[in-house]
Amino acid sequence: MPEDTNRNWTLAARPDGAPKLTDFKLNVSSIPKPGPGEVLIATRYHSLDPYMRGRMNPPTPASYTAPVPIGGVMESDSVGEVIESNSELFNVGDIAMGKIGWQEYGVLDGRNARKVDPNAAPISTSVGVLGMPGLTAYFGLFEVGRPIAGDTVVVSAASGAVGAVVGQLAKINGCRVIGVAGSDDKVSYVVDELGFDAGINYKTEDVPERMAALCPDGVNLYWDNVGGPITDAAVDNLAIGGRAVICGQIALYNATSPPQGPRNIARMLLTRRARMQGFLVFQYADRYEEGLDRLASWIRDGSLKYREDIVEGIENSPSAFIGLLEGANFGKLVIKVS
Amino acid sequence: MPEDTNRNWTLAARPDGAPKLTDFKLNVSSIPKPGPGEVLIATRYHSLDPYMRGRMNPPTPASYTAPVPIGGVMESDSVGEVIESNSELFNVGDIAMGKIGWQEYGVLDGRNARKVDPNAAPISTSVGVLGMPGLTAYFGLFEVGRPIAGDTVVVSAASGAVGAVVGQLAKINGCRVIGVAGSDDKVSYVVDELGFDAGINYKTEDVPERMAALCPDGVNLYWDNVGGPITDAAVDNLAIGGRAVICGQIALYNATSPPQGPRNIARMLLTRRARMQGFLVFQYADRYEEGLDRLASWIRDGSLKYREDIVEGIENSPSAFIGLLEGANFGKLVIKVS
Repeated sequence: MPEDTNRNWTLAARPDGAPKLTDFKLNVSSIPKPGPGEVLIATRYHSLDPYMRGRMNPPTPASYTAPVPIGGVMESDSVGEVIESNSELFNVGDIAMGKIGWQEYGVLDGRNARKVDPNAAPISTSVGVLGMPGLTAYFGLFEVGRPIAGDTVVVSAASGAVGAVVGQLAKINGCRVIGVAGSDDKVSYVVDELGFDAGINYKTEDVPERMAALCPDGVNLYWDNVGGPITDAAVDNLAIGGRAVICGQIALYNATSPPQGPRNIARMLLTRRARMQGFLVFQYADRYEEGLDRLASWIRDGSLKYREDIVEGIENSPSAFIGLLEGANFGKLVIKVS
Repeated sequence: MPEDTNRNWTLAARPDGAPKLTDFKLNVSSIPKPGPGEVLIATRYHSLDPYMRGRMNPPTPASYTAPVPIGGVMESDSVGEVIESNSELFNVGDIAMGKIGWQEYGVLDGRNARKVDPNAAPISTSVGVLGMPGLTAYFGLFEVGRPIAGDTVVVSAASGAVGAVVGQLAKINGCRVIGVAGSDDKVSYVVDELGFDAGINYKTEDVPERMAALCPDGVNLYWDNVGGPITDAAVDNLAIGGRAVICGQIALYNATSPPQGPRNIARMLLTRRARMQGFLVFQYADRYEEGLDRLASWIRDGSLKYREDIVEGIENSPSAFIGLLEGANFGKLVIKVS
């Protein structure tokens, strides 16, 4: 039975630069009631992902979706147990995921929730490797990046929720994969546990020099989660016909003034007749089932591994999120709510 | 009959920044003799194009072709009369074009020359609208940019050899076309004579403001001949699904240190799920005939116009080239050699 209060994190203030704890407010409200066709879900896990930083900004023409309003519940994919159902799609006791946000209880139209099989994989993976991050990797890599066996693939934020999947899918596809990450432990993880061919610790190594050394024939495919100097190095090493897939720009999200850098992108795309392309996973919304089926089968056969960084307690959501933007997490960051 | 000397321009020094007259040396040699299978061509016109600036640089891994060696003849497409032929492909008196360079006489393997019909169009067009610049526009626009009727297309260096063709082909394809150029005369030309829908004088107008005003639904297709702040404005206005075709970066060619600018490209490509792609015309070398046929038919039916900026005398090649890099030309720049 539900407690009679619902704790959730709302946006208290739009951050100026890096978010602070005071930009979030823990709100206590009553548990919502599901209307016709709706389900009430008791959250077990909610996701934390870098894109949420963009949702904290004021609305701009460049935003791909509306931001969270001041006082609104912070957005996330979440997964939990259906405790009341007015939808013929769900029974009480089913596990469901959807856009519930950073809160203990959420109501969704049953058509906007996805049923999760708790016997197939830990349910937390439905917001990770078998959720939006995994689908982002799958569609971005295969539809935008279009890897060819033998390609040298460089993945930034390589141990993260998306990067780790991208690199492993590229390996499955016969590519040589270099991961860029922010600690020796993360580099060891992607090389020793995930099977990447090499790694670069961007905090301790000279990235341009190491990337050039590790990619003597150039970078055929660069997966960009970060932007900034790591992207500069990858672009400067693009091979002829190279492709740069823009998935995220986490290094720029907390910028307080327009970040400046070398004007290398268009020049390199020209001389290497290369392509840089951004995408959003929802462009492939009609194919999520295909993506999830493939990802699940690779997990079953052992060729796709995942690592979760589970933080206990919804009271820790803001601090964990602030850490995520600084690279403090190791693996897919989720909050265990109950 | 040929004179018995051949004047040509060689590279005297690699420029530091903008080329100076002293970076070129006028060399006088004897007229070369064609070997087996070769033709001797007396140049009538040689082309001047921005890409030649890159050929003056030291070799770098980023160059798409080897630079001109110090003391080597400056590269160009040129067109002239065959005055000796050891090739069964050409008779004396034929008009032929090919990579002769900035010189009065050149020898080419007959297989590397293209026969030009002097009755179809002025032969100077074989290095312009019916040559590399026209083909660059044709393949870059249709194969890389992929315009859709109704697209808003922004063309930089709009009155130049490539830009003017791009804009007109986009109009033929049912697009709305905005040209960016460096004088009111050039803007009037592309609007009043070539039929562009609007123009921006980047030297006197606020480009970001004007571009935003002229493209209220965003830029679907940006043709980049220039790089730098004009490209920033176009990228900042990209529509969802927009495409930026990188053809040239003339604003950066004379830079003496790595140019810096806002890190807007990857971020905008992400939020607008857009694509930026570079290309070189020789990627489509097996389809030049198709391109030339199309371009010629549009010229015949009056839907494709061209303007040449013909400078008399090979002694003026370096000064005209220096002017080209500053935007001093108006239309396709060619040197009339004889």
